[in-house]
Amino acid sequence: MDDGIDRRRGAGVALWRQIQQVLEREIADGAVKPGERLPTEFELAERFQVNRHTVRRALAEMEEKGLLRVEQGRGTFVHEHVIDYAVGKRTRFASNLMKVGREAGHEFVRAEAGEADGSVAEALSLRRGAPVIVLETVGMADARRISFSTQYLPADRFPGFDIAFRETQSITQSLARYGVADYTRRWTRVVARMPTAAEADILHQPRNRPVLVTEALDVDHDGRPVNLGVTRFASDWVQLVIE
Amino acid sequence: MDDGIDRRRGAGVALWRQIQQVLEREIADGAVKPGERLPTEFELAERFQVNRHTVRRALAEMEEKGLLRVEQGRGTFVHEHVIDYAVGKRTRFASNLMKVGREAGHEFVRAEAGEADGSVAEALSLRRGAPVIVLETVGMADARRISFSTQYLPADRFPGFDIAFRETQSITQSLARYGVADYTRRWTRVVARMPTAAEADILHQPRNRPVLVTEALDVDHDGRPVNLGVTRFASDWVQLVIE
Repeated sequence: MDDGIDRRRGAGVALWRQIQQVLEREIADGAVKPGERLPTEFELAERFQVNRHTVRRALAEMEEKGLLRVEQGRGTFVHEHVIDYAVGKRTRFASNLMKVGREAGHEFVRAEAGEADGSVAEALSLRRGAPVIVLETVGMADARRISFSTQYLPADRFPGFDIAFRETQSITQSLARYGVADYTRRWTRVVARMPTAAEADILHQPRNRPVLVTEALDVDHDGRPVNLGVTRFASDWVQLVIE
Repeated sequence: MDDGIDRRRGAGVALWRQIQQVLEREIADGAVKPGERLPTEFELAERFQVNRHTVRRALAEMEEKGLLRVEQGRGTFVHEHVIDYAVGKRTRFASNLMKVGREAGHEFVRAEAGEADGSVAEALSLRRGAPVIVLETVGMADARRISFSTQYLPADRFPGFDIAFRETQSITQSLARYGVADYTRRWTRVVARMPTAAEADILHQPRNRPVLVTEALDVDHDGRPVNLGVTRFASDWVQLVIE
């Protein structure tokens, strides 16, 4: 079988690396497409006439580079392209996704009355313990869960905001009902960390893949804080783009 | 012993959660300071008169929230504050760290001649295979390694750039030698992923903590690309701040 793999010992490039190169070329050429399942390790070992350990090494390297995605119990898939999520002065979930050709959606998780703890109070310029509305939603791109957000809004200024949000499914449209025609992003902080069990569960992602977490403050045209949002993005699906 | 812990079964708030609250209050109050080592699980179990499993649950929850940091074989420490790393039009490593009261440094890893692959060529507006200078450096805050960067510069425009960089230890000062008095950031992309073995090793971080990876393009005042940089930040130490 001539598949371009040099099986001689000491042939310069390690076998697993050659196999990796062949598979990466097939992905680059479109022979295997994003979202497609790869053959099993057993099948690949047969194809390249090597043992499964060698195949596994090649796949592990490709997974590390983000080219493959392992779904427990389902197999190994060629990774789809990540979604570019624009972060800037005018960050909006729905229009961000529309720009990259995805359909935006929300799943409502819960809305409740709460009290501002230290960091929420500081960001929203409220006293500690002031009433806030806490909204939790899952952000969808097409049918995939890509983010999980907790939003804090001052309850005194936006009484019944949770009801408005349930009706409109949109922070922007809900704020408009209270006379906030526009808002801009004052700052965004970005960290990477491992997800909690609950976050991994909500995002339908494995616990051994990190989340990209943004904490962001939106202000109205007078500079008054209207919304503090903490969003965990599934790192397999989203990259932030700052322009 | 009255330590405010309610040990009755079914007492509303789980024991481990109460212990977590006590420990978090001690950190918030400054009774235990950032960088300090916590007592061992055994000592904490003694103190709270509970079993080690209960203590472990409380500590795991605090580690998950980023309040604690476990160093293998050394113990559990109160996490120091992360470094705010500003990302914007004028992102500069040294001045970024100076702003947050840290001393910036670099460790030179390697410099070599290379060829632009697909993504490097596209970002730098070069043809594929065009000569580039590849610089690898470790970024230091005080004495701690916080980042690992690979920079790509067009070799035809900046011949000998690696030598200039070795002398100046600064991209900004090196570019100035070629008449590039100033440069600005055109875009930054941010992803989170697990580190490769080599990255974890260079950053002196465990492999089970993610890295925050930025890919960024700097352009001169004519808008010509001068530098493509890929930087992996140790996520335990750095948060990006976008203003």
